[in-house]
Parts: sequence; structure tokens; C-alpha cells
Amino acid sequence: MRHALAILLLTATPALALDGLVEKQEFTLTDFQTRGGEVIPEMRLGYETYGTLNEAKDNAILIPHFFSGTSHAAGKYAETDAAPGYWDAIIGSGKPIDTDKFFVVSVDSPVNLGAHDPTVITTGPATVNPATGEPWGMGFPVMTIGDFVDTQKGLMDQLGIGKWHAVMGASMGGLQSYEWAASYPDRLDRVIPIIASGYANADLIAWLDVWAAPIKVDPNWNGGDYYGGEAPVAGLSAALKTLTLHANSAEWANSTFGRAPAEGSDPAAIDGKFAVQAALDAAGAARAQIADANHFLYLVKANQLFVAGQPQDGLYGGLLNIDVPALLIYSGDDLVFPPDAVRDTASIIRSDGTPVQTMQIGGGRGHLDGVLNIAQAGERIRTFLEAE
Amino acid sequence: MRHALAILLLTATPALALDGLVEKQEFTLTDFQTRGGEVIPEMRLGYETYGTLNEAKDNAILIPHFFSGTSHAAGKYAETDAAPGYWDAIIGSGKPIDTDKFFVVSVDSPVNLGAHDPTVITTGPATVNPATGEPWGMGFPVMTIGDFVDTQKGLMDQLGIGKWHAVMGASMGGLQSYEWAASYPDRLDRVIPIIASGYANADLIAWLDVWAAPIKVDPNWNGGDYYGGEAPVAGLSAALKTLTLHANSAEWANSTFGRAPAEGSDPAAIDGKFAVQAALDAAGAARAQIADANHFLYLVKANQLFVAGQPQDGLYGGLLNIDVPALLIYSGDDLVFPPDAVRDTASIIRSDGTPVQTMQIGGGRGHLDGVLNIAQAGERIRTFLEAE
Repeated sequence: MRHALAILLLTATPALALDGLVEKQEFTLTDFQTRGGEVIPEMRLGYETYGTLNEAKDNAILIPHFFSGTSHAAGKYAETDAAPGYWDAIIGSGKPIDTDKFFVVSVDSPVNLGAHDPTVITTGPATVNPATGEPWGMGFPVMTIGDFVDTQKGLMDQLGIGKWHAVMGASMGGLQSYEWAASYPDRLDRVIPIIASGYANADLIAWLDVWAAPIKVDPNWNGGDYYGGEAPVAGLSAALKTLTLHANSAEWANSTFGRAPAEGSDPAAIDGKFAVQAALDAAGAARAQIADANHFLYLVKANQLFVAGQPQDGLYGGLLNIDVPALLIYSGDDLVFPPDAVRDTASIIRSDGTPVQTMQIGGGRGHLDGVLNIAQAGERIRTFLEAE
Repeated sequence: MRHALAILLLTATPALALDGLVEKQEFTLTDFQTRGGEVIPEMRLGYETYGTLNEAKDNAILIPHFFSGTSHAAGKYAETDAAPGYWDAIIGSGKPIDTDKFFVVSVDSPVNLGAHDPTVITTGPATVNPATGEPWGMGFPVMTIGDFVDTQKGLMDQLGIGKWHAVMGASMGGLQSYEWAASYPDRLDRVIPIIASGYANADLIAWLDVWAAPIKVDPNWNGGDYYGGEAPVAGLSAALKTLTLHANSAEWANSTFGRAPAEGSDPAAIDGKFAVQAALDAAGAARAQIADANHFLYLVKANQLFVAGQPQDGLYGGLLNIDVPALLIYSGDDLVFPPDAVRDTASIIRSDGTPVQTMQIGGGRGHLDGVLNIAQAGERIRTFLEAE
């Protein structure tokens, strides 16, 4: 199964309609220039498409992904897949993002967390630097959310699309959505940032640092130079555990686990565990198998550096540059991008007359409601996408 | 200065009035039996007192401390101390906890985090086990909040106090307050748990695990066997950084630091920092100098195991055992013990007729408002303490 996917990845084929299976495709940008002024000779990235691009090429919707996500937003690679892509509830024939009408382009980011996931195509520290024949490691240029957007602009050009009908995404995908509207206001018709605010405030910067901290404590991290040796799996597992908890809610932890002991463990022993501990440890360890620690650190940096539009001074210049209609969807108990931060962003964009709608969703999963429980915003999204 | 304090610690002297300087005292319990059935041959602990015990010995208030705290709740050890004890705003002559009327007893907990702080007297993994002549390490018996309370009961007996006028404390000090009222309902007249709920739910259990995670990733932790070698300072620093952020609020981070760069650092570099990162790193590193990693892990375990009164079945038995008037004070933006958890606890205690008052405080510091901004609850505390 994994092997079959890995082979699929290497072949760029036309998109299938979403009632069939979906396939990973790839594109390459040569001599990609970062906003920081560095050059990456070969930027290879994956993407998926759902639906059909019309002749006018004006029905395309771009979906960048969240921190730990991939371009697999909808459909299945094989009938036997356990689950479809993360937003399958709202993407498909007749669904709110209707693939009978729209051509959806979902992209893998640079420095994607799942560097060792065979369904991901990305370029980052784990990639071999053609100039040295060795993995880039921490010598890979710092990437910003603006750089992610610029890779998507490269794909847009390759596909011959002049303007996105919409750009939308969850969490880090929402940051990229803001960035599109702020950096390239003439290249999209509307924007739907979900569970995301318009810049990284000190609170988010600090929490991202907490996520990353265990990686640097792991001696196998070795300053980022571990390719060919032991990877810092313990540190990366702990980082992913923290991310998993932070993206969830107290309601989730309490209602799912209570104070039950982990199976076969006595919590009263100094090394014993409660069920919630064992579940988070297992989740972190499982994700660490296909993730890359340096990619984690580069993603943290990209998110910490985020200010929409990267204005020279102040925080609001890019957000004020947003002129297309915006729909901001946020989760009421989100710990990562708290409701207040999103509502503040809405106020800033709205302040110069840009039409901004907001919608609060729930579901008891905190930040993750923007991924797991997005269906409740489906009709609102449909209406927003189909408005003249 | 430090040296002078270390000497003070070794001499048990009578309490001074709080208008003078305060002194650390110590008490010892021999063959202390834990609730888990193990025996600690010598349990040495520190305490401080403020005010004077009256002849009837019925004016004593017990104050256990929070996770990273000590018994230094009020006053200064020397005129030149930079700051007084953590609750000095409400303890003293004429203050809400009026030392002209009350005799305040503030205690160091077992497995106190500041095992290497010369102003702390504690017994835990860093203490030499008289049976082996080596530090206990992870062979130290697991301690519960109930065990902490039992050490305080030992001191109570040594002081000849039959009944506390009140037991009160913040955070883990609040857990100990609940535990007193649940385990020994006849040994206190009232209870004031602050920024604390009646049991550790899955959410708290999981977050405590996140706090601790970097310690176990640090190779110097070595399964807890590091005394005489390199201590796991990097892991402990990261743990303390996480605790510091979690105990604060987004408002604090954003209003204090914004997106300012750390001094001399360029956040756009992969190893560059924002000011909030540098401040939290510095706070974690500073605290790590006098803290002990194994003690951190034992404190995490004690808090995770906490259910007031340690009932055999269910969660509420101990809380329902509380019959003395209770005043529960909580912070509106507390991430560690969220308002909902505290209000739920109030409902449980109140359900069988026990008089329970609640008060929400603010101040923009999240959980820490229960320590840093307790003054706003001062008059409420005074009234509750002085009620007939």
C-alpha cells in the first residue's frame, strides 16, 4: 500500500474527478528565490486537484494546508484507505466546495512536516542539496509563509491560472490565505482563512517555541545534523505530543479519557500513566515516524515570522492591503488562535471598508474543530463561494 | 547573602512578628508513612510563621504552597531582599490575613521543586537516603497531595494546634487546602482554595505531562540517576519555560513583548529569537539553577494523582466530605485550572448543603493572578476569615 503510493507520487498524471480516486502530482520550481534573498536551485512540491479547470480558468480554488497537514484535503488514494483527505466533508461533488463547479488545487508546503511520508512531496532540510550531495540540514534557507505562497504562485503560473476564485485553508493554511490576499490582492477573488489570525502575536510565538523545545534537548538532534545517523525521535515525539494537546481542548481530554488508567499501567507508580498520557505519547510517537525534526523547526520559524503581507513597519499594512471579501471562521475554544485574535484580525481588515464576515464554530475539539468539524460551516462556505 | 540564608536555615528559632524579618524554621518527622504504604525514615521540612499563636491555639492559619513555590509567603529574610514573600500583599499587620490576629504557618512541601535553593528545606529524590548513603533518586516513594497534608498534620501536632482556623493556598496549595477539608474535616474551621479545582482532570494530567516531557528527553536525566554527575539542566529549563508560559496568559505575552526581537538577535535567522522567547528561556534557565528535575517529576505525579480525599470510588466522595465553609477564588483566564473546573468543584461541594462562596479575579496574568494579583480578593478573604 505504502509502496504503491510511493510509486504514484513519482508520476504526474491528470487529476481525476473526485468521485474516483485522487492522485498526488508534483511540480518543480527552478532557482526559487526566497523573500529573504536566498536561492533554492530545485523546489519540488506535491499537489492534488479535485474537479475540472474550466476553459476560462476562473473556477480554481487554492487550499494550502495546516502545520502538520499535507495536500491530501479530499478523496482517497485507494478504495482501501482508512480515511479520506482532511476536508472531505466539504469538498466533492455537490458538497459546499462543489467539484462539479470548482477546480480545487491543494498543495504541499515547503519544509512539510511529513518529509518521510511517502504521500508527501516537499523540499526542505531533509532534502539533498544538489550543490553538496548532502541533505541541506539547518543550512536550508529560512522559509516564511510568504515563501510558501510564492511557491503556490509558481504552480498557478504553470497551470495558466490568472486569478484564484478563492484561497482558503485552516490554521497555517489560513495564514497562507491571508498572505495571498495581502501580497497579491489582484490574484484572487475572495479569501476564507479558517482558525487563523493575521499575524503571529507573542503568545503564539512563545507556544510554538514550547512545541519545539524537546527537539533541541534531544542529543540526537545534534544541531540539526542527524541525517545518516539516529534521528531525534524522542524529542520530535514529545514536540508532536505537545502540538496534539494544544490543538485540542480540555473538553476533548476530559470527555474522552477522564481519569482512566492506561491499559496495563498503574498511574500511582512513578512511571505509570493515565490513559490520556498514553494516548498522547502514542500519537506523538506515531507521527514522529514520518515527520522530520528540522522540518518541524522550520515550520515553527515560518509561523513565528508570520505577519500578513510582511509590511516593513507595523503589523497592519498587509492586512489593510486586503480588498477582496473575506470570511473568517474560528473555533470558540481554540487555544492556538484564540477567538479574540481572529476577531481582532477581522476588525483590522474591515477598518478600511473591506467586507469581512466572521463565523464561530464549535464541536469540542478546540483548534482542531476547523479541520474535524468544518462541516458545520459548509453552507456558509458554499454561499460565500457562490456569491456573485 | 545566599550564604547568610543557608546558615539561617539550620537554626530553628521562634517566629518574629511580621513587622520584623522572617526566618526559615524546620521540623522533622521520623518514619513518615506515605498513604501508599511506604516509609521515609526522616522527613525534614521547612516552615515559616508570621504573627503569634494565642493561648487557646485557635488562631492558626495554614498556607501550603504552589508547584514552584516555597514556604516564603510573606516578609523578607533580610532588609536587602529584592522582594518579600509571594503573598505579602495580603499577609501582615492590618492586612487581610492580619498577623495581629492570626498565627500564619507556611510550609515547604516534600519533593519541593527548589531542592537546591538554600531557602528551602525539603525531602525528596535529591535527599540522601540514610539507608544507602546515596540520594534517593527515583527510588523515593511516590508522594500524593494527601502525603503533603499528612506532613503538615505532623507539624500541627508538634505545635500543639488542634484545629486550623483556616487552610488556604494557591494552585497546588489550593489542592492541599481541599485535601485538608476532605481528609480531616474536624481539624479546620474553613478553607480557601485559590486557583485550584477539586481533582486533576484529564486535561490537567496531560498538560503536566507536557511540562515534564523535556526532562525525560535530556540524556543527563539518565532515568533519574544524575546526582554526582551532570544534572539535566537543558530539559529542566525547557520544562520550567513551559510551566511559566502555561501559568501566564496571552494578554501578558502580547502586552509585554509584542513582536519585539530579542536584544542582539535577528528573529529572521533560524536560530534567532523574539523577545518573548528569550525572556522565557532566561526564566526557565534561571529557575533550573536551584530546582531539581526529579523533584519536578514527583510534583507532576502528585498533582496528576490528586483527587480530594482520595476516595476509593468515583471523584466526589472526598469533596462531599467537606463540611466547613469554603471560599473558592479563581482567575478568569486561567489555563491551568480553568474557571469551569473550579465552578464545577464549587457545585459539587455545595450539593449537600456546605456553604460555598466563589470569587473571580482578574489582572491579565492568567493562573498567576492567584499569586501576583491576590490583593483584589483581600477584603473578601478578610471577611471570610473573620466571620463568626
